[in-house]
Amino acid sequence: MPDVHICEVGPRDGLQNAHHLMPTEAKKVWIAALAAAGLKEIEVGSFVPPKLIPAMADTGEIVSFAKTIPNLKVVALAPNLKGFQRALEAGAHKVTFPVSASRKHSESNVRMTPEQMVEEVRKCAAHPHPGVEIEGAVSTAFGCTMQGEVPEDDVVRIAIALAEFCDCVALADTVGYANPAQIRRVFRKVRDKIGAKLEAAHFAAYEEGVRHFDSSMGGLGGCPFAPGASGNVITEDLVFMFESMGIRTGIDLEQLFLARKTLIQGLPDEPIYGHTPEAGLPKGFRAAA
Amino acid sequence: MPDVHICEVGPRDGLQNAHHLMPTEAKKVWIAALAAAGLKEIEVGSFVPPKLIPAMADTGEIVSFAKTIPNLKVVALAPNLKGFQRALEAGAHKVTFPVSASRKHSESNVRMTPEQMVEEVRKCAAHPHPGVEIEGAVSTAFGCTMQGEVPEDDVVRIAIALAEFCDCVALADTVGYANPAQIRRVFRKVRDKIGAKLEAAHFAAYEEGVRHFDSSMGGLGGCPFAPGASGNVITEDLVFMFESMGIRTGIDLEQLFLARKTLIQGLPDEPIYGHTPEAGLPKGFRAAA
Repeated sequence: MPDVHICEVGPRDGLQNAHHLMPTEAKKVWIAALAAAGLKEIEVGSFVPPKLIPAMADTGEIVSFAKTIPNLKVVALAPNLKGFQRALEAGAHKVTFPVSASRKHSESNVRMTPEQMVEEVRKCAAHPHPGVEIEGAVSTAFGCTMQGEVPEDDVVRIAIALAEFCDCVALADTVGYANPAQIRRVFRKVRDKIGAKLEAAHFAAYEEGVRHFDSSMGGLGGCPFAPGASGNVITEDLVFMFESMGIRTGIDLEQLFLARKTLIQGLPDEPIYGHTPEAGLPKGFRAAA
Repeated sequence: MPDVHICEVGPRDGLQNAHHLMPTEAKKVWIAALAAAGLKEIEVGSFVPPKLIPAMADTGEIVSFAKTIPNLKVVALAPNLKGFQRALEAGAHKVTFPVSASRKHSESNVRMTPEQMVEEVRKCAAHPHPGVEIEGAVSTAFGCTMQGEVPEDDVVRIAIALAEFCDCVALADTVGYANPAQIRRVFRKVRDKIGAKLEAAHFAAYEEGVRHFDSSMGGLGGCPFAPGASGNVITEDLVFMFESMGIRTGIDLEQLFLARKTLIQGLPDEPIYGHTPEAGLPKGFRAAA
């Protein structure tokens, strides 16, 4: 059994924000390679209007494909009831709803206040969804370029509201402003209120007991509506860090590097980051046992 | 008084490993801008054979220029006695000697074993150097692509040997393999042996009481003889992280971003990283007071 659980968000967060389109077939090859490396949960797409985000237009087909991979939890993002209905039709195992804690970011991103967005998620959760997990993801939880500081009390309040009707709640550092002290403080505050429902997290939160992490292969992604957002936590480096600390991820690094190759083949003109794959594994590297 | 002390190594480590040459005048503009931002210590160059590393051919002139900036500690690297003599002639305030803890890296980099390199530094330290500080920098202290694992005992032994005749000792993660647990463990071991002489450090070492950090503007640099070395800790992000945690660096971020512009102007074709300068400071950001 792994000690930590990593959800790969590249096929959604990464491709949604990439400068180029990855063909549907290449997405399938990449997702299969990720699963082969040991990833047990992948956010494969987003049910948003295809006109708005053409890169996500094939999400229905991608969800269907991903569901054919054994033991893979297939996650899709939905911003509203319509997207949720499409996700249910496609058969996603888990649907994640982003709620921005920054008023300005929320209004510019979904034209709703954070409170209105919480109500939208509540409406979705009231909808029958047998066997489907619902996640509320509090974005810009650690700062926002547009608004500046995001009051920690706002983050805690939104997380509590979401925990009422979501199966789990994640805190996301959309822009990348979080520092370790802040992450520990905010996670502690939120966990005091919602307990084990608090899931996805940054590394500093590992020390606070969180064991679910979101990351993106090659650091692909970042929100296009949060100016300056500059990439996600890199799956390859996160797995290497955990494994070399003796923390089991259940993911095979060599196979993960193969998955990275399929990403680069599918999206050849996109900048792909990652220290560990560039440096290569240290000679004689042993994964956590 | 700042709570932490940051040494900018970009003009040395960065430019030494860049794909393009920065003209001497542009180096001066950049170094002046870094000092104006509040950096009190800058590693400005390397006294290595110009034939081997043309980017460092003007180090004598750069040291002379940097010495005209008030309250700036001017650091230069020397790999041997000849380089040390040139550094003394130029008037560097501090000279740093790299000693690789990885046998393979050391042999490929300086054609000496780690033990031979320690003896080379001992010879230099025996040379009169009134008022000039000597630093021993243990490189590849957390792993090496060529050799794989670098035994922690080797790192501790080299650090102890250097502390005998150096004013301070730094541990460097040349390739970027270090993880937080490892950093804490190795720093603790070394500090138990050499106490306050242990200086430059990674963030995880902050929690172990270390207050001296090396970083590089734009993440420029990494050792060309350690294949896969992929960039340094980014000064802009390090300063932002400390300041937003309430830890004073004495560095003005706005001015630091101006210094980044001079770097980009002086080295227009080089990839320059940095999350904070790309995202911009959060609206209403306040530095640590």
